[in-house]
Parts: sequence; structure tokens; C-alpha cells
Amino acid sequence: MSDELRVYDKPLSPLSLLERTLHVFPQQTACVYGDQRWSWAEFGALIGRFAGALRRAGIGPGDRVAFLAPNVPELLAAHFAVLQVHAVLVAINTRLKSEEVGYILNHSGAKLVMVDPELAPIVRDIPHPLDANPAFVNVEDPVAGMTGTPLDGPTYAEWSAGADVLPIVNDIDDEFRTTSINYTSGTTGRPKGVMYTHRGAYLNAVGAMSSHRLDRESAFLWTLPLFHCNGWCFPWSVSGVGGKHVMLRAVDPPKIVELIQSENVTHFNGAPTVLLMLAESPAAQGIHFDPPIRVATGGAPPSPTLLATMEELGIKVTHLYGLTETYGPHTFCEMQEGWDQLDTEGRAQVMSRQGVPFHTAAYVRVVDDRMNDVAPNAEEMGEVVMTGNNVMKGYFEDPEATAEAFRGGWFHSGDIGVMHPDGYIELRDRKKDIIISGGENISTIEVEHTVVKHPDVLECAVVSMPHEKWGEVPKAFVSLREGASPTEQEVIDFCRERLAHYKCPKAIEFIDLPKTSTGKIQKFKLREKEWAGRTERIYGGQAKGS
Amino acid sequence: MSDELRVYDKPLSPLSLLERTLHVFPQQTACVYGDQRWSWAEFGALIGRFAGALRRAGIGPGDRVAFLAPNVPELLAAHFAVLQVHAVLVAINTRLKSEEVGYILNHSGAKLVMVDPELAPIVRDIPHPLDANPAFVNVEDPVAGMTGTPLDGPTYAEWSAGADVLPIVNDIDDEFRTTSINYTSGTTGRPKGVMYTHRGAYLNAVGAMSSHRLDRESAFLWTLPLFHCNGWCFPWSVSGVGGKHVMLRAVDPPKIVELIQSENVTHFNGAPTVLLMLAESPAAQGIHFDPPIRVATGGAPPSPTLLATMEELGIKVTHLYGLTETYGPHTFCEMQEGWDQLDTEGRAQVMSRQGVPFHTAAYVRVVDDRMNDVAPNAEEMGEVVMTGNNVMKGYFEDPEATAEAFRGGWFHSGDIGVMHPDGYIELRDRKKDIIISGGENISTIEVEHTVVKHPDVLECAVVSMPHEKWGEVPKAFVSLREGASPTEQEVIDFCRERLAHYKCPKAIEFIDLPKTSTGKIQKFKLREKEWAGRTERIYGGQAKGS
Repeated sequence: MSDELRVYDKPLSPLSLLERTLHVFPQQTACVYGDQRWSWAEFGALIGRFAGALRRAGIGPGDRVAFLAPNVPELLAAHFAVLQVHAVLVAINTRLKSEEVGYILNHSGAKLVMVDPELAPIVRDIPHPLDANPAFVNVEDPVAGMTGTPLDGPTYAEWSAGADVLPIVNDIDDEFRTTSINYTSGTTGRPKGVMYTHRGAYLNAVGAMSSHRLDRESAFLWTLPLFHCNGWCFPWSVSGVGGKHVMLRAVDPPKIVELIQSENVTHFNGAPTVLLMLAESPAAQGIHFDPPIRVATGGAPPSPTLLATMEELGIKVTHLYGLTETYGPHTFCEMQEGWDQLDTEGRAQVMSRQGVPFHTAAYVRVVDDRMNDVAPNAEEMGEVVMTGNNVMKGYFEDPEATAEAFRGGWFHSGDIGVMHPDGYIELRDRKKDIIISGGENISTIEVEHTVVKHPDVLECAVVSMPHEKWGEVPKAFVSLREGASPTEQEVIDFCRERLAHYKCPKAIEFIDLPKTSTGKIQKFKLREKEWAGRTERIYGGQAKGS
Repeated sequence: MSDELRVYDKPLSPLSLLERTLHVFPQQTACVYGDQRWSWAEFGALIGRFAGALRRAGIGPGDRVAFLAPNVPELLAAHFAVLQVHAVLVAINTRLKSEEVGYILNHSGAKLVMVDPELAPIVRDIPHPLDANPAFVNVEDPVAGMTGTPLDGPTYAEWSAGADVLPIVNDIDDEFRTTSINYTSGTTGRPKGVMYTHRGAYLNAVGAMSSHRLDRESAFLWTLPLFHCNGWCFPWSVSGVGGKHVMLRAVDPPKIVELIQSENVTHFNGAPTVLLMLAESPAAQGIHFDPPIRVATGGAPPSPTLLATMEELGIKVTHLYGLTETYGPHTFCEMQEGWDQLDTEGRAQVMSRQGVPFHTAAYVRVVDDRMNDVAPNAEEMGEVVMTGNNVMKGYFEDPEATAEAFRGGWFHSGDIGVMHPDGYIELRDRKKDIIISGGENISTIEVEHTVVKHPDVLECAVVSMPHEKWGEVPKAFVSLREGASPTEQEVIDFCRERLAHYKCPKAIEFIDLPKTSTGKIQKFKLREKEWAGRTERIYGGQAKGS
């Protein structure tokens, strides 16, 4: 059949979502940052000029454009402008060190690097040459003011001035074209470049519209870093419904409370740590948001305490789970009839599960080493594996790692979980975190769930420590609520009343927990401390901590 | 790249929506009919056995399975069972005559025909042999009872007994595989077989979830015939969210009111005629549904009277537009900020427009004969054309009609409309309905809008009638509210106060308007009456009424 007759076969792309919104909602507010406000017509023009400047700068199909910035409007705009010239966005984690950023710039071969002046020192201190000899653009931030010495290059305003305003149109030739490369956090080993496609981004965005109930009245607050899995595709889904983006340079609880109220925020996303920070903030005391705000959280299940606190605040929590390799969320704990009526404890229990795939995310299984499904008994552990349109296309220029991750035709998450009888998955551990004590598997997450039930405990991380008899045993690192001071033995006894004794921590240490930029606790740092100078046991053929 | 590594490239199919719901919501109610109720686990088993029986009957990939039945559970189930064996569903309009049904059975080459006993006479009276020599299955209806002599063949129960229950799984090899063929109403000329694909049906369903705010608490009442564009893809979207299907054999206002209340219906779809029928019914008097029910309506814009009446009833109306060739709805009148606050008259005015494409429906234009866009001034008329993933794959075994419909790479709707300055389309007429009077184009829809504003008028249809001087002039056929009896001249004068005089009807006739099975007024019958024995003018190179 001639191409003219394939009227029905149009590539899926986030560009068509923006194109529609510019057509339908030109006068609605698109983006708010400080005292700057853009309508969709204005923000569309900004994106169009951005795209025009990219083209003028020689950026074309497949070229990589790197971005190192907090959640400023230009980074949001890049999620469309870079795609419009069929190039590839590389949004880099702003907490990385110079060596890591340098590695990513070289590995991605970025031709253009856009940098917030505050982060310029990270780039300036890269200890090796950048092979692609990229151009730099300084993305000044009028809200934050100029807080650092810019790199050698124009400001964004200078760079984009006078560029053609390209029309926003889905003219993508192949829906499997790469939209972006998101580098894994690479707690150990080199970061890997996860490739997203126009098709995957589109389907994820359209699925999110329905699952998170986004519409033209939605106002989305950017607490989640945009560099984190392209903000779980929310740049595309919120724009697709004609909603409003409320930008936020840093997670700052009083600012969050203020913006929620002044901008009528309806949605935001963040790790439980971010929610805890908000709940503990004096600015949130006595506040109850009505109508409630929808908040999606991932990285750790919401504890009963967290759920109760969120309810008081007027926040409706959705628990979801995924990885960089799955465009962010792949599953969520879809609520069943009657769950809303459970008490906080009961709700926390059902909601602690990572759940079932999104409509557009297809499949998830829990399998043993031979890719057989584990028994759906909430007991037998296996690795969580996924397929579907929101699994990455592969690792950029790393066919070996791609083949390893996709062995057997499924993406291997490296997460250990169980399957409940009702088909909901629940994580038990990262493959590298699980503790094998006297031959028994111990899920550190299960132990953590118990420890945090102690009324004095704010947060907790459990890792293995060496043990003469059992090989390894659990140790808990605990941060306490303000003013609390339980003894180590009190917390251990609390666990022994609630858990099989072999699973209970044999030691407790009270500390400030080390965290990543996205609020995840860095267990590997704690484990390294315990195992310094020793060799950990092997699990599943893979050296732990490697 | 080897197939194993294309983990991310999974064909889109409505089957994956059902598969997910069977996994996530097995205990929720799937379907209600009379005093029969099925959970999703039960309905999934029914579908699986249906698929097993199809396979046992020798139905395989690409084979056509025809269905002639009202909105019974088996026809809903067929929307998945037929797809599961990779066959093609042909759901036939139940109001067609024997000759027409015979034509469709022969043209589609259906190997199996499933018929409701009440409709058996239509099949029995087909005046010519059926070339494919199909097998027949009698789909008995325990709710309606056996109202006709069945055809020579087993009942559905007998036919499906003992068949394997096939697993519901998206194992589609190619997302452009045909799901169904829906024959156009073919008011004149032969019906054409519109082919839908798995990809198109999936995207349409996922788009509808978000646009119509469907979720697991949705209960959808089947007032819209399932044979009408596969029920606008609602079999797939409602099932995809785990909602409840409330089946309905015939549009019966007291029954509708009763089911809305007993089943907590949240959504239904229907032509304005169906809504009027409901509003005028004694059963609806004094009723106010709370929370309001979402109703999508198409075929004609909702009048101010209709909107006011629906508001009293507690019904929130969405106006949408499409054709069989676009899986049903392609555009809808997306509400803008502030429109909710307009008075009924103002709201009816903005809502009379057919609007903008759905998120998943991509493009719509209004073009002249050379495919140039008309000026977006709400004045200049042109043909409405579409592209995108919810345009049909083509007409079954009719490459010439397909090429004609897709000329220039766009689907030609045959509808005449204007583009408003804000990018919303508004229909002016069917290409074949427009009146050319003394060289001026007159939109019969515009005239109808004026006539129905008269307080005595319930519904109205305007067609051309011959005129010595002007060639043709408008004539209005009007059905009146109960008890009203205006004169012809009163209605004409009412129009002359509101419309350019050349657009006003030159004659009024008070009658019961002839309608199709889906509630559309059959203008061609009225026009035929006026033009009996004469030749109509030519418009746009196409003989009107041909």
C-alpha cells in the first residue's frame, strides 16, 4: 500500500500532545516560576524558539543535548524543543560529582551542554577533556539570581535571541526514534545510558493522564527532579492535558506549602523522604489541603505513620514502582473496592505492595533463575522482570549490558520480590541487598517495615553485617524522631516481638541516613562501612555490592 | 536487533486491556443483564470459552464472524473473543432489511453468523444464497425470552458447551491486524466495510479512558448500539478500567431511569434524540441524578433546550463528532475555562461546535477542493478531513473507495464545516445536504438551529426543495412539543427575525421525523419526497442524494 494510503499509521510522539494543547488551550497557564508566568501560546513560542536555536546551532537528528540544571522552565521546555529537532535529551543528575558528569558527557557524546550557573563548577572541574568538544550555554535563572561564575559561552537568552520559532508539529519519521538518554545512578560501576523512545514516552504519558486523573484543571508542582527518568514522563502528560507546570528549584517545605496554596496545586510526586520532610515542616502544621492533593510516591512504600500524616495534611498517596529502565513507574498499587475504608494500619499494609502494571505498561512477573514464575504465595522470592512499551529501548552504546538486561526477552530489574495470590507484586529487596543468614533469605525491607513501626523511629535502613556463625546478619541504621532516645536493646526487643528472631537486627546504630539526590537511602554506603576489608557472600551468582 | 531484544516493542491491542483487568479486578462486577451478573473472573471465563468455541468451529486468523443482535452480553463478549482468535468481528445494524444484511454477509464472507432469535426472520428472508455458506448460532436471550423461531443451528449454549477456555492474552503478531469491519449505513449506494485495527482500537480506548474519566468505579449503560462503530470503542475502554457494563436490549426510558438508579450508572452515550426521549418520559419527571451522569452525544449538537433539560435531570453532556471511518468520535467540544459558568443559551452556543480532536485522534482540518485550509473565520466552508491513529485502515475489499476516501493523504469525511478562529470546527452540513440557493450556500444545520429555538419545536430537519427562481430553497420538517400548535407562518416569521431571509425556510411541515436505528434523522427520505421525479442540483461535482 502506498504511503499516502497509510492515513491511519501516524507515529506516536509526545510532540503531538503539545501540538494539541497549543491548539486547544493557548490562553491557559502553561508554566509558573517565581513571578514569571507563561500561557501555552507563550510557552509554545519559547519552545519553538528553543528548537530554532538548536537547529541554528547545528543540532540535528540523533545529536545529544545535555542539560545540567534544577527544575527550571528551560529544562521543561527542552523536553519538547530537543525532540522537535529530532535530537536526544540527556538530563543529568545535578548531585553528581565532576568525574561522573564528565563520564556522562563523554559517553553520550553531547554536542551541546546547557548548564545552570550554580552548577558550573561541577562542569569546570571535570578532570579530563571532553572528547566531543561541546559548546556550552549558561541557563541563567532570574528567580535564583546569578549564583556562580558562568562557563565560557553565551547565556540562554543570548544563544536563543533571534532564532526562528519552529512550529511545534509531530513530524517524527519513526516512533522508535530516541527521545532521551537517562543515565542510571550507578551506585557502583559506571552509569548506563537508558534510551527512551517517542512511542514509549507517548504511551506512558497517555497512560498517566488516565491513571493520575490529569486534566486541563491540573496544576503539577515539580518536586520530582526533571532529570529523574524525564520526570516520570510528567512533562509530556501534564502538557498533554493542558495542565499547569509549577516549577521549583529545590525541595523546600515552606515554599511547597506556599505554592500549593497560591497555585492551587492538584498533583505532585516525590519519594516518601520528601513527604516526611514536608510533614515535619513547621510550615505544614495545622494545614489541611481541600480538595486533597494527589501525590505519587515511589522508592519505598508509604509507612502507616506517613499515610496518617498525609491524610491529616489532605494528601492522597499513590504508591508506585519502577526504574529508570521503565520510564519511571511501571506498576502502581491500584486501590481495590473497600480499601479506602480501611484504617491507616490496614491501608498501609495493602498499599505497601508495588502492585500491578499501569494500563500502558503491560507485563510484570516474579521469576526464578530459570525464568519460571514463583508461586503466587507472597512467600517465594524471585526477580521482578518486565516487558512492554514502557521498557527502555536499551542502553546507549552498550549492547552487552542491553543483552544482559534483556535476557530471555524480559527486562531484569535486579529487584527481588514476591507475588501475592491476588497478582500484586511486593518488593522484598534489591538483589544486592538481600541478606542470606545461615542459609535463610532475609528481606531487608521486611525488617525495615518492622523497625519503623517503633514510635521513636523516623526512618530506617537495614543491611547485612558479618557474623562468625551465620555468615551475615541484619543490622539496622535508624534516624530518630526529634526528642526520642530509645536504647539499642529496646528497638531490638520491639522487633523480636513482631518478627522471626533470625530476621531481627542484631545491632542498631542511630545516625543521619545517607541519601541520594532523589531521597533514596544509600544502603550501599552503610553496607560498605560494615564490610570494609572483608568479602561479602555471593547471591544468585552476582557478587553483592559489585 | 534480534526479536528477543525488542522487549519494548509490544503490539497494541484491546486484548491487553482485558488481560490487565482480569488480573487486577477479578472480583469486581463486569457485566449486568436482567438478573444475571458476572464478575470479571466470570466474564473472562465466558469470553475464554467463547474463543475456545470459535477455534473449535474452525474460526482462525482473519476469518469474519458476523453478529446480528441487540446489546446482549454475548455481543459484548464477542468484542474480545473474536479478537482472541485473531478473527474479525462484523457487528451488523439490527434495523437493516434482509437484502442489506444479505449483502453484508456476502461482502464480508462471514463463516459464522450469530443471531438473536428475534432477528432470525431478517436472516431467513435474505432473498439470495450466502456464498460463504456460513454456520448459524442462535444467541438466545433469557431476559427477553424466546421471541422468534431460531435459525437452523445450535443455540449459543449448545455451541459453546465443552469448549476449551482459552486464556485471554495479547498474543497479536501485528498491531495493524484487523479487529472488526463495521459497515457504513449506506443511506444510498452499497454499504462499505470499514476496517478497524488492534492499534487503533487500543489507542482510541486509552484516549477515551482519560477524556471520559472512566475508572474502576464507572458503570456504563449500553444505550448506544454495540453495532454502531463497535460502540465507539467503549467495550474496550470500559473493560480496560475494570468498569461495569450494564446491558440494555432496547432504548426504553423507564428502564433506563430504573437501571441508572439501581446500578449507579455513571456514563452512557446516545444521540440527542435518545436524550430527548429520556427527558420527555414520565419516568424521568422529578428525577435529578446526583452525582451527575456523564453522557456523550453525537449526530447533532445539543440544543439549548436539551442542555437545560439535561441539567435538570443531572446529566452532564459532552458533544462529540466522528464517523464510522474514525472509530466513532474523532473530535469533541472540549470545555474551556469559564464555559461551565455560561447560561444555558451561551453554553449551547459554544457547545454546538464539534470541537477539537481527542488526545489520541491527531488531526482534523477544514479544506477546499484543492486541500488548502479554509480561513479560520467561522464563515468559509470546506470539507472536514482527518488523519491519525483512529482513522480506519480502509474499506474491506474496496481499494477504489479507499483511495477515493484517502485522496491527498487525508480521510475525507463528506461533512461540510467551518473553522472557528480558536481552532474548533463546526459542521455546517453533510456535503450532500447543503442547499445552494441562488448561488448562495445555505447550511441546513444553521437553519435547524434557528428553528429549534422556537419554544413549540421539539426537533427539526431542513432539506432543499425545488424552487423556480432560486433553484432550491430550504424547507423545514418539524415535530412539535405535546400540546403545541403554531402555524407555518409563525415559525417562518420566527426565523426571519433571526436569520438572513434567503436562509429561512420557505415552507414548514409538521410531521414525525423519520430516524435511523441510532436516532439520526433520515434527511435523505425527506429530500427524496420533495424531489420525487426531479433532478437535484450538483454540489462539488457530486450528485446530491446519490
